[in-house]
Amino acid sequence: MNSSLGSEIDSFYESAPPLKERDSIMEKLNEFVELNCKGTKRVVCVTSGGTTVPLEQRCVRYIDNFSSGHRGAASTEYFLKAGYAIIFLYRRATSQPYCRSLPDDPLLECFEATDELNIQVRQPYSEAVKRAIRDHHAAVAGGFLLKLPFTTIFEYLQVFKIAIPGRSFLLLIEYLVLYYEQMLQMVAVSLRSLGPLAMFYLAAAVSGLLCSLEKHEHKIQSGSGPLDMRLVQVPKMLSVLRTEWAPMAFCISFKLETDTKILLDKADMALRKYKMNAVVANELLTRKEVVVVVTDSEKISVQRDKTEAGSDVENPLVKLLVDRHSAFIKDSNA
Amino acid sequence: MNSSLGSEIDSFYESAPPLKERDSIMEKLNEFVELNCKGTKRVVCVTSGGTTVPLEQRCVRYIDNFSSGHRGAASTEYFLKAGYAIIFLYRRATSQPYCRSLPDDPLLECFEATDELNIQVRQPYSEAVKRAIRDHHAAVAGGFLLKLPFTTIFEYLQVFKIAIPGRSFLLLIEYLVLYYEQMLQMVAVSLRSLGPLAMFYLAAAVSGLLCSLEKHEHKIQSGSGPLDMRLVQVPKMLSVLRTEWAPMAFCISFKLETDTKILLDKADMALRKYKMNAVVANELLTRKEVVVVVTDSEKISVQRDKTEAGSDVENPLVKLLVDRHSAFIKDSNA
Repeated sequence: MNSSLGSEIDSFYESAPPLKERDSIMEKLNEFVELNCKGTKRVVCVTSGGTTVPLEQRCVRYIDNFSSGHRGAASTEYFLKAGYAIIFLYRRATSQPYCRSLPDDPLLECFEATDELNIQVRQPYSEAVKRAIRDHHAAVAGGFLLKLPFTTIFEYLQVFKIAIPGRSFLLLIEYLVLYYEQMLQMVAVSLRSLGPLAMFYLAAAVSGLLCSLEKHEHKIQSGSGPLDMRLVQVPKMLSVLRTEWAPMAFCISFKLETDTKILLDKADMALRKYKMNAVVANELLTRKEVVVVVTDSEKISVQRDKTEAGSDVENPLVKLLVDRHSAFIKDSNA
Repeated sequence: MNSSLGSEIDSFYESAPPLKERDSIMEKLNEFVELNCKGTKRVVCVTSGGTTVPLEQRCVRYIDNFSSGHRGAASTEYFLKAGYAIIFLYRRATSQPYCRSLPDDPLLECFEATDELNIQVRQPYSEAVKRAIRDHHAAVAGGFLLKLPFTTIFEYLQVFKIAIPGRSFLLLIEYLVLYYEQMLQMVAVSLRSLGPLAMFYLAAAVSGLLCSLEKHEHKIQSGSGPLDMRLVQVPKMLSVLRTEWAPMAFCISFKLETDTKILLDKADMALRKYKMNAVVANELLTRKEVVVVVTDSEKISVQRDKTEAGSDVENPLVKLLVDRHSAFIKDSNA
């Protein structure tokens, strides 16, 4: 990338409004660490949702980005079952643990008024709704589940619009990347004392593109096409997480592709480039049925248990990763 | 716009996958019309949410697009109060009538488990939640409120990816524009028999930009920036609605700007260009406090009643438009 583009990225990041919630997030993290980070208790940070600038051919990252967030929410449930404490770093409006089986708009879909004063859960949702509320609140109240949403777009859209009216939306999305980065860093630093007991399960899709429109403002405003715009690559954050923020932790990243032929090679490249302990490779159309866990020594295919109704691939996937994490802890302590 | 761009737009629209839900939507519309469209009953189609390609300088349309959908949801409540039957054409995951005062994730925020088997609404949400469910269901069950979500992105992202793998995400967003258009047309045609008794309250933000990436696919895939892309203007749909789909109806559109100096002029231009009966002009930062209703003969400023807690500008706005609609019906029948 030439220097003018590099400096464009720098000035963009420098122009970002500060993360307002920093202090309250730090406070929650400290409480959580104090409560959970003792003895041999394991902690996993699950990232879910995404921040992608939607300009990928075939929208691969885009799907992860605006997907239901099913992967992260489901995995969180299984990690809790396996005795982990979870920091769930999620994109607002994506799927929540224990709510995967509920409709889009659960309040209006799952409840009905019985009379002027009372409401009740409608069949057939009765059990699912009660379980969702019960299990979710048990995990949060017990202190095993800390939920940290990425800052909403809307909030920063305001800030952003007022602070730098000349900027375009896609830069805003990149701010979300920046806030996601800042929050992930805070989590990593607060978990550093756990060493190998900490896991990072990076299911969120993060953007690698930055868009610049400044020189075209007026053309856009006038709305008379055509308009040419420029995209540049922004630096990846996985390397920094691995080398600086969480050097001792067990780190899992995800690779989603539409082309099976290149999927495993790309997963392998990511494993080595970012020094991950494992990369979960999944193909767009089969990602809910099968994934391949790629480590430096093996490639393990993990399948959904088709014999079991309502089963999902996250169940055996988390089981496998928990085993690998145990081995990793053993080696690290040896 | 030169002819090559024009043909690019045509070929894009021709390549769009068909709207799957067409038949079921038509069925719902016919039921609704049969139930409500008799005598002097008035019907309003409220559009809410948006389909914008987020490339506007200052993100004006983008804010409408991803906003809570508050304007459309609030207005729907007031139109119901005024005795209208409503077709609520909304972008999925935007605000719903009667739910505006509830938190982002009402199921998990507003309820708690009392024991293994029961859940209850938490104070302080108790009244708001019960009212939301009661009023919403009353309107739907009574047949006064027909809710039609625009087709979700995700669904068509699949179709789209399989159907035309070479296309980019922004084209997908434009498909949403297309599906919104198709649904609006179905509504307009089904309400045509009402003549002046039908109102269109077009609060949804609709995109005017189309993005083309084909010639850059590989560059994007490789991720090595910079990448240049091209945007072209797509035809506006308001003219078609007015002149072809709903020539007799009372049509209200919205104009959102960040620059107060040009706002009223732009609203006035939109009024004449698209032959609207009124254009609601609102400025980004004050849009929840005050709007200006622009007609061919007057510019009326409508303010939120600050003396009343929890009041909103949609209340007096809808009152004013209902009065103007009455006059319009009287003139049309004269």
